Formats: sequence, C-alpha cells, structure tokens
Amino acid sequence: MSFFIGRNHEARRSYSFDEVSIVPGSLTINPEIVDTSSGVGDIKMGIPFLASAMDAVTNPAFAVLMSKFGGLGVLNLDGIYTRYPKPEEPLSKIIRATPEKVTRVMQEVYSRPVQEKLISQRIAEIKEKGAVAAVSTIPQNAHRIGSVAQEAGADILVIQATVVTSRHESANGTYLDLKDFCKGSRLPVIVGNCVTAEAASELMETGCAGILIGVGPGSACTSRQVLGVGVPQVTAIVDAADARDVFYKKTGRYVALIADGGMRTGGDICKAMVAGADFVMLGGTFARAKEAPGQGYHWGMAMPSKYLPRGTRVKVGREAPLEQILTGPAFKDDGTQNLVGALRTTMGYVGAKTIHELQQAELIIAPQIGNEGKLLQKMQGVGSV
Amino acid sequence: MSFFIGRNHEARRSYSFDEVSIVPGSLTINPEIVDTSSGVGDIKMGIPFLASAMDAVTNPAFAVLMSKFGGLGVLNLDGIYTRYPKPEEPLSKIIRATPEKVTRVMQEVYSRPVQEKLISQRIAEIKEKGAVAAVSTIPQNAHRIGSVAQEAGADILVIQATVVTSRHESANGTYLDLKDFCKGSRLPVIVGNCVTAEAASELMETGCAGILIGVGPGSACTSRQVLGVGVPQVTAIVDAADARDVFYKKTGRYVALIADGGMRTGGDICKAMVAGADFVMLGGTFARAKEAPGQGYHWGMAMPSKYLPRGTRVKVGREAPLEQILTGPAFKDDGTQNLVGALRTTMGYVGAKTIHELQQAELIIAPQIGNEGKLLQKMQGVGSV
Amino acid sequence: MSFFIGRNHEARRSYSFDEVSIVPGSLTINPEIVDTSSGVGDIKMGIPFLASAMDAVTNPAFAVLMSKFGGLGVLNLDGIYTRYPKPEEPLSKIIRATPEKVTRVMQEVYSRPVQEKLISQRIAEIKEKGAVAAVSTIPQNAHRIGSVAQEAGADILVIQATVVTSRHESANGTYLDLKDFCKGSRLPVIVGNCVTAEAASELMETGCAGILIGVGPGSACTSRQVLGVGVPQVTAIVDAADARDVFYKKTGRYVALIADGGMRTGGDICKAMVAGADFVMLGGTFARAKEAPGQGYHWGMAMPSKYLPRGTRVKVGREAPLEQILTGPAFKDDGTQNLVGALRTTMGYVGAKTIHELQQAELIIAPQIGNEGKLLQKMQGVGSV
Amino acid sequence: MSFFIGRNHEARRSYSFDEVSIVPGSLTINPEIVDTSSGVGDIKMGIPFLASAMDAVTNPAFAVLMSKFGGLGVLNLDGIYTRYPKPEEPLSKIIRATPEKVTRVMQEVYSRPVQEKLISQRIAEIKEKGAVAAVSTIPQNAHRIGSVAQEAGADILVIQATVVTSRHESANGTYLDLKDFCKGSRLPVIVGNCVTAEAASELMETGCAGILIGVGPGSACTSRQVLGVGVPQVTAIVDAADARDVFYKKTGRYVALIADGGMRTGGDICKAMVAGADFVMLGGTFARAKEAPGQGYHWGMAMPSKYLPRGTRVKVGREAPLEQILTGPAFKDDGTQNLVGALRTTMGYVGAKTIHELQQAELIIAPQIGNEGKLLQKMQGVGSV
Repeated sequence: MSFFIGRNHEARRSYSFDEVSIVPGSLTINPEIVDTSSGVGDIKMGIPFLASAMDAVTNPAFAVLMSKFGGLGVLNLDGIYTRYPKPEEPLSKIIRATPEKVTRVMQEVYSRPVQEKLISQRIAEIKEKGAVAAVSTIPQNAHRIGSVAQEAGADILVIQATVVTSRHESANGTYLDLKDFCKGSRLPVIVGNCVTAEAASELMETGCAGILIGVGPGSACTSRQVLGVGVPQVTAIVDAADARDVFYKKTGRYVALIADGGMRTGGDICKAMVAGADFVMLGGTFARAKEAPGQGYHWGMAMPSKYLPRGTRVKVGREAPLEQILTGPAFKDDGTQNLVGALRTTMGYVGAKTIHELQQAELIIAPQIGNEGKLLQKMQGVGSV
Repeated sequence: MSFFIGRNHEARRSYSFDEVSIVPGSLTINPEIVDTSSGVGDIKMGIPFLASAMDAVTNPAFAVLMSKFGGLGVLNLDGIYTRYPKPEEPLSKIIRATPEKVTRVMQEVYSRPVQEKLISQRIAEIKEKGAVAAVSTIPQNAHRIGSVAQEAGADILVIQATVVTSRHESANGTYLDLKDFCKGSRLPVIVGNCVTAEAASELMETGCAGILIGVGPGSACTSRQVLGVGVPQVTAIVDAADARDVFYKKTGRYVALIADGGMRTGGDICKAMVAGADFVMLGGTFARAKEAPGQGYHWGMAMPSKYLPRGTRVKVGREAPLEQILTGPAFKDDGTQNLVGALRTTMGYVGAKTIHELQQAELIIAPQIGNEGKLLQKMQGVGSV
Repeated sequence: MSFFIGRNHEARRSYSFDEVSIVPGSLTINPEIVDTSSGVGDIKMGIPFLASAMDAVTNPAFAVLMSKFGGLGVLNLDGIYTRYPKPEEPLSKIIRATPEKVTRVMQEVYSRPVQEKLISQRIAEIKEKGAVAAVSTIPQNAHRIGSVAQEAGADILVIQATVVTSRHESANGTYLDLKDFCKGSRLPVIVGNCVTAEAASELMETGCAGILIGVGPGSACTSRQVLGVGVPQVTAIVDAADARDVFYKKTGRYVALIADGGMRTGGDICKAMVAGADFVMLGGTFARAKEAPGQGYHWGMAMPSKYLPRGTRVKVGREAPLEQILTGPAFKDDGTQNLVGALRTTMGYVGAKTIHELQQAELIIAPQIGNEGKLLQKMQGVGSV
Repeated sequence: MSFFIGRNHEARRSYSFDEVSIVPGSLTINPEIVDTSSGVGDIKMGIPFLASAMDAVTNPAFAVLMSKFGGLGVLNLDGIYTRYPKPEEPLSKIIRATPEKVTRVMQEVYSRPVQEKLISQRIAEIKEKGAVAAVSTIPQNAHRIGSVAQEAGADILVIQATVVTSRHESANGTYLDLKDFCKGSRLPVIVGNCVTAEAASELMETGCAGILIGVGPGSACTSRQVLGVGVPQVTAIVDAADARDVFYKKTGRYVALIADGGMRTGGDICKAMVAGADFVMLGGTFARAKEAPGQGYHWGMAMPSKYLPRGTRVKVGREAPLEQILTGPAFKDDGTQNLVGALRTTMGYVGAKTIHELQQAELIIAPQIGNEGKLLQKMQGVGSV
C-alpha cells in the first residue's frame, strides 16, 4: 500500500527497528539446540556477527578475538593501522583531543598516506593467529589496496562507501567497475552500502559474495540530518532480502546480506535477522568492548570528510569484555550484553532452528508511540516492569 | 488492513494501550448496579483481578488478602517461599543489595533448591484462612511440583513461562506435554503466556481452563529491548479473544483470558477488559501495596535468568494499602488507586452491566501523539486540566 | 477507512487537535470584516466563547464580565457559590491547602449542602448587571435546582456530567428523563457531555438547544488515564456536527454544539470551530484571567468525587486580564492571549465571513511527530522561528 | 488515499520534513560534477539559496554577500532599513531589550514611517557592489513601494504576507489586484506565501515569476499554535510543484517555487528540493551567520503585529561566517554548516546532475518515531553513531 504525500504524489512507507516487533511462534524450541551459524561466500561463521571496519573498533587483535568467538572483525585498510606503524600514538591523539579540536585532529591524523607494507603486516598479524582476515577499502582504492591485500593473504575483501552502486558517474570515467573487479578478484568481495531492491539487484549482478545494507538507517542518524538521505533499516533489509531471494531463484547463487548500522540492542539485531539479514555488522556496540582500540571512544567514518563531517567522536564507555557482550553473562538488562544469548532465545521463541528459519518469522508493526513518556517515567522510577 | 514494510512484505499493525481509548455508550448505567464478577473454570471471583506469581508481590498472606477482596493472588512455587522456610531473610538480601550487586545476589538466592515440604506448607497457609489457593510453576517442573500442589489442596494451577506453546522442541523430547498434563490434572490449569490467535487456539485444545496473554506487551518493556520479541497488548488480547469466542462456539467450553503485563493504570485495565480479557493480572501495581512482601521493591521474573537478565529489581515504593489500591478511596489522580472504582465507572459509561457486556464496548484508535510535550508542560505546571 | 486492531476486529481512527491543521483558502478576507457571532436557542452572542461551570472560573462577577465581551460565563449551581453565602472563605481554603491535603479539603468544602436561597441570589447578581445568566447543574439535581433557577430568572440551563445520555439505567429507575425535562423547561437547555454521533442524535431528540462535546478529549487527560474512556476532540466534534447537520435537515431545528475541553491555544479553538463547533467552552484558559475566582488555581470538577478523584487542583497562574486573553493585545506568542484576534485572523485566512463558513474550511491531518524534539531544541534556544 | 477524521468526514494526510527521507539512487554521481544552479524569471543563480526578507537577516551588505556566493538576499522594504537612515540604533534597541519589553520595543521601533528616499538608497547600496537587488514588500504597499523600487533599479520584487491569494476581500475593495500588478511590473515578481495547489495555480495565473511556499510549515511553529493554520512543508511543496508542472505543460511558462520556512538542516533543504522546490529561503539559518545584522538574534516577521504576536525575538547565536554555513568546511555535524556541500553530496547519492533531476528523486515516508528517546540517549552519551 502506498500513501500520498501530496495530491498526486505517492510514496512508500518505510519502517525502522523501533516500529516493528517479532511475533512468537506457535512452536517453540529450546535455545540450546538452535544453530546460529551463517555464511558468506565459502566462509562459514559460528555466529552472524561482524565488527565494523572502523578504527575505534577493529584492529588486528580485535579481529583475532572476533574470529575466536565465531564472528568476524573487518580491518579498515584506509585507516590508522595502515598509515602508522605504531597506531597507539594517533589513536591517543584522537581520544585525548578536546571536543573543540577533535575534528581538526582527526583530519590531520588521517592525512598521512597509507603504506602498502603496513597492509601486508596487519593482515599477517591476523592470519598468524589462525583467524579469518577480512579487510575493507573504499571503491577509489579497491584496485591498488585490494591487490596488496590479496597478495598478503586476506580472506575477504569489503568495498565500502556510504552509498555504493554498480553504476557511478565521475568527471573522467575512471571510477571502479565493480563487475570487472569482482570477476578479477580471487577473494570473495562484499560491497555496499545500499538500501533498495534495485541497487541490491544490480550489485548482485556484479558477482559479489555479500552486500552491506544500511544508509541513514536511524531517524536520529547523521546522514539523515545532514543530507536528508536514508532508508529506515527494516525496510531496507526486507527489500534487499526480497531481491536476494529473487536473484537466488534466478541464478542459484545466494548472496549474503549484512545489516550495517542502526542496531544497538539484542532486540534490534534479532529484528534485522527476521527482516532477512544473514549477518549484522556492529560498530558502536563493539566499540564498548574493553578490548576495542577506541578505549571507550568511537568515531563513525573510515576516513573523516574534509568538508562535511558526519560521525564525529562519541564517548561510548568501556563497558565489558567482548566475550560478555557476545555470549554473556549479562549484568545489565538493556539489551547490550549477551547478544548471542538474545539471538538464541529469540530463535527459540519463534521456533527457528537455523538463521534461514529465523528469517521466516513474523514481524508485526508495533510502534514505540508513547515510549518517551515511559522513558521519563522510568527515569523517575515509576515505570512498570 | 495490512501494511507493507517492504515492496513485497506485508505486516499486521498492532496496538498498545496508549493507542486506543474506550468510547462511551449511548446508554449509561449507574456504577453501583454493575456486576464485576468473572470466572475461570469453576471458580467465580467477585473482581477480575489477579496478583502475579512474583515473589515481591504474592506470598501466602497476600494471596489471602486478595481472596478477601474478591480477587486472587497466585503463589510462585519455584520461588523464595518454597526454597526457604523463613523467606524474610532472602527477601531482605535482595531488597538491601546495592544496585551493582543485586543481579548476583538474586542469582545466589534463587540457586537454593525447592523443598516439596514447603510447597505443602505454603498452600496450607492459604487454605487455612479460607482463601482460594492459586499456585504457579514453570513447564519443566509442572509434573513434579504440580502433583505436590494438587496433593496439598491447591485450587488452581498456573503453568507459566515467557512464551508457552502446546508444541515445544527440546534436545531430548522430554518437555511437558500440555494436553496430557491438563487431562491428568484434577485442578483447573491456566497456561501461558501467549499472544497470537493460533497459539491461543492450540493452547485451548489442551483442555486448560484459562490462558495468560502477554509477551513483551509494552514498547519500553525489557523483552522487546533485549530480544525484539513482543506483541502490543491490545492486539494480543483482541486476537486471543477472537480465538476464545471461536473455540467457545465450536466446543461450548469458555476458556478465560487473563491479560498479564503492560497495565499500570485503571485506564489500561479497563481497555484490557474491553479488548476481551476476562481478568487482568498485575505485578508492579500490587507490588506497591503496603502489604506486598517486596516492601516497595519489585523484580520481574519468577526466577532470574543466569545469563540473560530481564526484569531486574525496581524500586516501586510502598504506596497504599491493597484495599485502597483496589477499592479506594483514591488520593491520587494518576489512575493507580481505586482500580475497582475505575472499572465500575467505565462499565457505567459504556452501559455494561457485566464483564461480558464490557467486552462488547467500542475501542477507538486514539494515539498519544504529542503526549510527551504535554507531560513536559504538566511538569512545568502549564498543562490544562 | 477503518483499521484492524486485531485479525478480525476493526476500529475507527480518531484525531486530536495535535494531529490536524487548518488549510488556508484560495480566497482570503480582511479579518476586520468577519462576523464572529454565534447562537444557542434564541440567545445570540458576539463571540463564540463560554466560560466553564467551574468554581475557579465562573462566579457571578466573571459571568457579568464574559457577557460584557460578548461571551457567556456558566455558573455552577452545585458548587461553592450556592453552598456558601460568603464564598471567599471556602475558596481560600482550597487555594491555600497543601498539595497533600487539598483533596480532603475539597471533599470537606463540597460536603456543605446547597441552599436554594443562594441560587436565586447568585442569578440575581448576574441579571441585575444586565448580563445573560447561564447556570448549570448535574442531572440528579436538574428538577429541583432547575426549577429554582427558572424562577430566579436564569436565561439558559446547562445539565452537565462527564457522560450524559438520553438513556440511563439506575437502581430504582428515578433518573432524569431528559426529554420530559426539556419539554417542561421554559429555558433553553444545554446538555452533555457526549462524544459520538449516536449519543448526540439521541440528545437532540430530547429537545435541547445545545450539546456539550467532550469526554476525555486529550491523551494526557485524567479520564483517559484513570478510566481509559475518551474520544479525541476533533473526531468527537466532527461526528457530532455530522449528526447536528443530519438532524437539522430532518427537523429544521439547529442544535448548537459547544466544544468543551482539550483546548488551550487559539489554534485549538480555531480547529474546534472548523471541525464543526458553534462555541468553545474553556476552563483552564479563563482560570488564568486576573478576574477569575480561582486566583491562579484551577480545579476540574464541579464536585470532587468522594472516591475516584479526577481533576485535582492545578496552579495555572494569573496571567492577564480577561480582556487581554479575549481580545488582546497579546504580549505572548504561545497562543493563549487574544483568542478572538486569532479567530478573526484564521477566518480571514480561510476566507470565512461567518462561523458557519468557518465550519466549512478544510482540516488536514498534520501530526506533531517530532514535536518534542523541537520543544527540546526550543528550550535549548536552537529552534527556528 | 484519504483518511476519515470522523464517520463521514475525509481529510488528506500531510507530511513534514521529519516524516520523509530521500532514497539513494541506483546510479550515483561524483558530487564535484553536479550543477546546483537554479533560476527565477530571467535571473540565474549559482546556488538555490535565498536569505529571507527579515531585518535580522538581510541588510544591503548581507544581500551583497549572498550574491557573491551565488545566492540571493531579499531586502525587506517595510522594515528598519527603510525607516531609519542609521539602522544600527533601532537594531541595537531590539537586540538589547529585556525579554519582558522586547515586544513593546519592537512595536515602537516599527511605528516610524518608511521613507521613500531610503528605499532608493538601500537598493543603490546593493547595486553599486554589482549584486542582484531583490526587495520585498507587503501587498498593501506593493504599488507605492514597488514603483519606487522599480525606479531605483531593483531586479526582483517580492510581494509577501503570511497568506497571499489572488482573491482577497476587504472592506472597501481596495486591496491589491495581483494580476494587474504583475502585468504592470517591469520587474519579475515573486508572490506568496501559499500552500495548496489551488492557490498556487491561481497565483501563477497572475503572471508572477515565482511563488513562495510555506504557511505554518512546522508543527512547533507559531502560526500553527496561535491560529491552528498551516500545512506541513513537504506536502505544501509537492502540491505546489504539481500545480507548477501542470501550469508549465499548459502555458510553457515555468514558475519557480521557493520553499520558505520550516527548514533548519541540510537534510531539510535537500528534502525541500526533492519535493519539488527550485529554491529554499532561509531565515534562522542565515541569522546565525557572523555577518547577519541581527548579531545572534532573530525575529520572525517583517513587521510585528500590534495585537497578535507571532515570531518574537529568539537568540540564535553567531555561529560561523556565511561562507562556512554555505560552502563549509563544517566543524559541526548537525547539518547547519556547508549546506551547499550537503546539496552536492545528496545530488551525487541520488544520481542527479541538475536541480531538475534532483526534483525527480524518490522520497520515502520515514517518520522520526522514537527520535526523542534517541535524543535523550544522545544527551546522556549512549547514542550509537
């Protein structure tokens, strides 16, 4: 059903995590017997969790740790770790900068060039611990940095920008040809981000193994405020999942969908999976881990824009070890700890033994109208349990 | 009418208490001549109010008190009262624990095993005062604890977990067969919770006398945040009531619906009844009673989860004697006192002489958009009356 | 269009003032040439404003003042002014009571019996100043107090309770027969409140001259919270106006609609008129007048309930002289001053020369989503003008 | 699709900026190659930005500065600059007035008559710097002030009031005949404001070059609160754009639409353009420029109303030089800086090379439900990036 935003102007209605809820099934399953594994390309993971390619989240050590728990940490190859042999110093500069100066400090830190030697070194640091090495770069650097990463033994390559399409016009026509690139790559390639069925379909045609879903996913998110651009994440995932299923029927090739952005709690994550995601990619949530290189701080972009800042530094705190965030035990009830436990419990409640069965569960529209009032009440200690 | 949350993905719209309102009738009745009685199985109660099977709410003394006012208090047989001969001490530990330690303290308190002797003793304490003994246990313990309770003279048995279905898969297939259990039980059995017409229908087929409705009923509720699971309570009740009426027409057997959770005010309670509930079950509201064993504190679960806490301890205050909460007089105008008076007045306004007539009143969709602004205004003392 | 709040359960969507807006016309009119007069029965008023029958709002002097400005103040004949020869003292008791004691103080003040002598005296005080004497009582007292008022020369009688229907069941069947009463009354009778087309139609059949519209009109209002009962005011007015127009076509008799409750600003008032009201009745707004007997305080009910308080005392402040509230000049831009100026300006913008033309203007659904965020911004001084 | 706000009463649903979002395209373009130019009448501008005809925003120097950056500043000919040879003094009076006195001070400042000599002088100050001279007046003064402005060499004339229609009734019928006026004017004429397709169509028939769109555009805006009048800006623009396109097809004449009001961030501006605007006109945003004559203050109306104040003085701060607000670099991520950069980036994301292509991008309904909760979280430092 479409709505009219003017006399003769139809528009689709889209939905965010805050507006939907998962309906329990008529069959339930003991959480202990559900299977949380998920795959992209030939790589199979025990849990469908990726850590974002952000400098405050994933350094080589964190990638190793994610691998250990069955997930995956994606290392940003355009960031601090490939610009600085000793990343502690620039990280510390960003973390210690006063709020007034932090944007300039970040712009300065990220002006140092990337060193190919460091790319190889960082990948080696991951591989020598037996972990899966997932690395990311922006489309403009895909050829140069991608081939170095491939040489260095990376397992997955992520080509990521705010919006990526298979068709891009630039002044001189020298932009990345994704189809060409994927065909030529020995590694499985994940591309994104995108948010519509059309764009996702076209990206699948390039031969990629996975697609990142999420542009301006939340209504309070910076892209929405600065640019007005964005699609609420539930609708974006549902539409991309629809395109994926159509593509799978047509070609027999299953392209994994990775929901990226807008998720904070176990509830958001489970909703993303029910909407059709195969994986979730988390930044802020993992930036809260004690082991995260951001030391309680988080900044949004792989590389800060010189002239249009989005995603400045935010204090997130160092909340708990990654293990506790992933598999508990949780000592808070706000949904930010024991995310795998939440996933298992939800799978049990909807009677899903696998991630693919979880994707078949029912979402119901259930807006959080009146929620703020209740938040206020909670703050005043009068909320019901 | 369904909505599309994606191009080809329909979803139902569900409604919470905050989004509906009761429409006055064209006929009104003097509140003094309405009949508030309601029944489950063979048991008839003067008022349709149950106190939750939570340790901070219902101990044997509170169950007796509820009975005295025409309602029912359900005693949790998996909790403190059947683990400790002297419950004062563990209650006091939980109440006095610092916020940092309370989750661990609760986990420790609830690790002591249940004693069958205490089950009998607690039921006796209720029965010897001439009160109705309603007791609850989780599905896993239904056979063992249920049979002890039956022996001890309990009147109603509640089998309760967050989500209960008549079909449940576990590793070894040893889970409770509800149909079998209800058939074998001499006591009327109430089961739940559930939130869909399908699940409710299947539960009715087991032969139970009543069903608990409510999973993640409110948008600010912990299950929704931690797991993403839940159905707004109005839609859950309406759908279950529809299933109940269909089942009644088909079989001639009337299964009582007990709305459980998400209700805080007289308004919420009346809406639950109009939506189709036969009873409401209240936790936080009764935890505020002076006589409640939680002494101004409330904690959500019968048994705290070891690894996924939901419903931690909340300070609710000791607001008024139970009698005042139930039948007034109210000295506050926030809808938390004189709940029976509110029910009677609403029945009068919609022209309903009985609970069954109340269930036929009209609900209108009336969202609380803009409510927070008004709450803010109220806080600043500029709100209109 | 109806919505489904459950699988097989339709419900109407209703609208509050916060959810609609008035659309400017293609023709505009100079505000100075619009006609704001409106009538009920044979009584013609220059402005469509009534002051509520509340003790903190309308005493005889205030009624005289309202008349002077072209409006009408309704005197409550069940309140302080007919119970006490010297009302200053009980008013002062209520105003000075501490918040903890105010409910009990009010219950005590209102326990003194009404004196028929004082009814006559209060009406005389209004009449001797050449003002229109509008008086109100509750249905139970209509015969006794109504006939005294009639004798004393009152011009309009208001029979008012939270919900009034033409059919009411009581224990002994002695309740007021409205049809009978209106037929027997020499005065025009206004009855209410009601909120549906059906109830309004039935009340019109009794022969009344006007109907009060409004039960739980706002989402933050006490009736909605305590009882769950209420209909958002725009929908209530629109439906009653529809019934009025149908009744007028059928019988040739025009029954005036008085929107009562839920209005705070000039915007709310104009929306009520566009929705179809012939008058607005304001309590809190006029309680803020310097001349109001509540001296900066306001309490909601004609008579406080002994056991279910709604509408306790609220501090509203003494904001401005009544003249300034009605006809300006306004020194605030929040819409609470110069209400007649706002009405005239809006009539000009929609091209309405009369109240009946104003009732034909277009309402558009325009919810205040995101409003709270903007209120917060305003508080922080970053809002746009 | 229409909705029912009562049994038999349909109403259109309208949308505000907070309720829509821009969908990225399947084709993207490098922001460096997009063309941001837009035109009204014969005048072509490099960027589609106008500064409002408000005394705190546009004085001659600011108009020159806007011209330099490719935009346009509109000078209010009914305001301080044409009433006072030395405007510094009255500006200072308004800026320094205490909040209690500011309304009276403004009323006094604006009581001094306009001097025709100063009109010519102000226009000369703009022209002699080689800038485009856009000037505005109210309909009542159009003939007198318009002809002086024309003589003085103005380039564009704006006839502006809260609501302007081609049909207006006044007491003596002496109101401005817009058709006549436009025909007789040598200058291109911009008229407004209006918010419906009908009113816009009728205004286009007068022969104007451009139309201002916006009456009570935001839900927290003063016109909405004081008068109840207003149409959310997205729907107003979409409907006017529809009328413009119909008119263009019929007559071959393209009338420019200028979105006026309700926009604060780059996101709002981009949404206005996608909805169909050719230009945006900003008041508060430019009042924050270091060069703005309001010196960190802003007041809404060209001329404050004597009796119905809307748009009183607001402190907005002196945030950054105009250049930084327009073209960055931005040192804040709230969307109030580098507005042209935001426009370019969004054009790139939707694959639009020109403003007309940008107007073809897709808007999706994406309400900011739950946003306040997130704002609260952000304030508490727990928001996700």
